[in-house]
Amino acid sequence: MSSVEKNSIAKAFRELQSEICQGLEQLDGSAKFRSDEWARPAGGGGRTNIIQDGALLEKGGVAFSEVFGEISEEMKRQLKFDQGKDFYATGVSIVLHPENPNVPIIHMNVRYFQIDDHLYWFGGGIDLTPHYIVDEHARIFHQRLKDICDHFDTTFYSDFKQRADDYFFLPHRDETRGVGGIFYDHLSENNTSLSKEELLRFALRLGQNFVPIYAEQSEFGRNIEPSPGEIEWQQIRRGRYVEFNLVHDRGTKFGLHSGGRTESILMSLPKTAGWQYDHPIKMGSREAETQAKLKKGLDWLNPA
Amino acid sequence: MSSVEKNSIAKAFRELQSEICQGLEQLDGSAKFRSDEWARPAGGGGRTNIIQDGALLEKGGVAFSEVFGEISEEMKRQLKFDQGKDFYATGVSIVLHPENPNVPIIHMNVRYFQIDDHLYWFGGGIDLTPHYIVDEHARIFHQRLKDICDHFDTTFYSDFKQRADDYFFLPHRDETRGVGGIFYDHLSENNTSLSKEELLRFALRLGQNFVPIYAEQSEFGRNIEPSPGEIEWQQIRRGRYVEFNLVHDRGTKFGLHSGGRTESILMSLPKTAGWQYDHPIKMGSREAETQAKLKKGLDWLNPA
Repeated sequence: MSSVEKNSIAKAFRELQSEICQGLEQLDGSAKFRSDEWARPAGGGGRTNIIQDGALLEKGGVAFSEVFGEISEEMKRQLKFDQGKDFYATGVSIVLHPENPNVPIIHMNVRYFQIDDHLYWFGGGIDLTPHYIVDEHARIFHQRLKDICDHFDTTFYSDFKQRADDYFFLPHRDETRGVGGIFYDHLSENNTSLSKEELLRFALRLGQNFVPIYAEQSEFGRNIEPSPGEIEWQQIRRGRYVEFNLVHDRGTKFGLHSGGRTESILMSLPKTAGWQYDHPIKMGSREAETQAKLKKGLDWLNPA
Repeated sequence: MSSVEKNSIAKAFRELQSEICQGLEQLDGSAKFRSDEWARPAGGGGRTNIIQDGALLEKGGVAFSEVFGEISEEMKRQLKFDQGKDFYATGVSIVLHPENPNVPIIHMNVRYFQIDDHLYWFGGGIDLTPHYIVDEHARIFHQRLKDICDHFDTTFYSDFKQRADDYFFLPHRDETRGVGGIFYDHLSENNTSLSKEELLRFALRLGQNFVPIYAEQSEFGRNIEPSPGEIEWQQIRRGRYVEFNLVHDRGTKFGLHSGGRTESILMSLPKTAGWQYDHPIKMGSREAETQAKLKKGLDWLNPA
C-alpha cells in the first residue's frame, strides 16, 4: 500500500460531499439540503443529504458513506471475491432528478474499497439520462468527461465510456439508461499508469467537476416551459430509471439484499414516475428521436 | 398423470380470463379492455388484456399465457429443479390499480406447470394491498378466501395464508405488501387430499370469485372522495408495490431475466408511483394506522 491512507480518502470524500451540496444549492437557487447522519451497527456510517422541491431539483441525493467490518459470505458472492477478512469502503453517490423534463437526470459515484491492509481499488462513474436527448448536449457532456480522463490517462475515456454503455443498460428493454458517460472499477496502481495518490486525485477531479458539468447541462433546458406531453414522457423515462435501479443496479441490489440503509439506497428514485402499457411513440416526434438513441456504442463526441 | 390434460387446463384458463375481463368492465362501468395477442418464439404465447383510465380502474392487466419448450439452464436455476427436458406452463395473472386510494390494489394468479409428461403442479394466490387498511374490509376479504379454501380442504386457508404473509413481504422495508391473502405452489395429487381435477377446480373457483371479491372491496371506498394527502399517500404505497415487484417478485424477476415479454410482465406496475425520502407519517393518522398493520402473522379473521 502506498502513502494515501483510507482515513484521508474518507475525509476527502466527506469534504467533496459538502462542496457538491453547496454548489448544488447555489445552482438550484431555492431549496436546501437536509442532512441525515446514520451509523451502521456492524461498523461505520454515513451522511445522506437530500434536496427536495427546489427550483431546479425536484428530488436529489448526495450521499457519503464510510463502512467497514468483516467480509460476509453474501459480500463475497456479490463481489465475486474470495479472500481477506475485513473490508473498508468509502464513497460519494449522487442522483439528481430535475423538475423540468428539458433538464437531464444525472448520476455520479466515486468510491474506494479496501480488503485488509494489502488490497485496494477505486471505482466510480458518471452518467447522464436526458428525458430528451439533444446530440450537442450529449457531445458537450462527453467532451467534459474526456477532458478530465485525458488529464490522467488518454486511454481512460474510450475504455470507461464503453464500460458505461455496457453497465447502464436495461436488457429487458434493450435500451441504454441514457447517453452514458464513464464507468470504471477495480482501478489500482497495479493495473493503471497511475499511483494510488493519482487515482484519488482522478476521483476527486471528477467530483469537483460534477457541479460545473450539471450547471452547464441544466442551463440548456431549465428555462424551457415543458408541455403536458413532455411531462408525461418524463414520467415514462423516470419509470425506466426506477426499473434500472431496482432490477439491475449492482449497488442498489447489494445494498437492499445486505441490509443497508434503505432510505439512503433508494434516494436514487424519483419523486414521481409512471408506467403505461405499451406507451405509443409518434413517428418523427422528439420522443421517437430520443428512443432511437438509447443505444450502446454511439460516438457522442462525433455524432453521425 | 390423471385425465385432466394440459390443453383443457389452458382452455379453462383462457375462458377464465375472458370471464374476468367482462366482469371487470361491468364493475368499472366506463373503460374497456384492449387485447394483445403475442407469440413466444420458442413456443406458445399469450393474450394480455389491459384496461386504463376507467371510472374505477386507473390501470389493470389480466394476462393469459400458455408457454412451452425446452427447459433452459436459467429456468432450472430459478425453479431449483434439475430433471426433465420439456416444460409447459399456463396461467392467468391479474393486477388492478384503482384510481381512488380508498380502494385497494389487488393481485391474483393461478397457474399450472408441467415437466415432460410425468410431473405437474398447480400454484397461485390472491392478495390485497389497501392504500388504507380497514380491519373489517380485510376480515371480509380473508373470510371469502377461507370459504373458498374450506370447500376444498380445511387445512388450506391457514397454510396458504401464512405462505402469503411470507411471500408478499418487503425485507428491505420490514413490511408486508398489504393485508396478504393466500399463496400456494407445487400442489399436486401427491401432496394434497385433492385429485388433479379438483385442484383445477380450486384454481377456477378462485378465479370465478375474483370479480365478486373485488366488487365488494371496491364498493367500500370507490365513492369516497380522496383528499390531496390521501392521493399523495397512494403514490407512496404504489412505490412500495413497484419495489416489491421489481426487487422481490419471483415471476417478475424470472420473466425479465429469461427474456419474457416485458410489457406483459410489467403490466403489474401502476400508472403513477412516488418516492419521498423518509416520508414522515403523523402519529395517530390513518397512514400511521396502516403502516402499523403491514405485518406478518396478523389474524385478520379475528382482529385484535
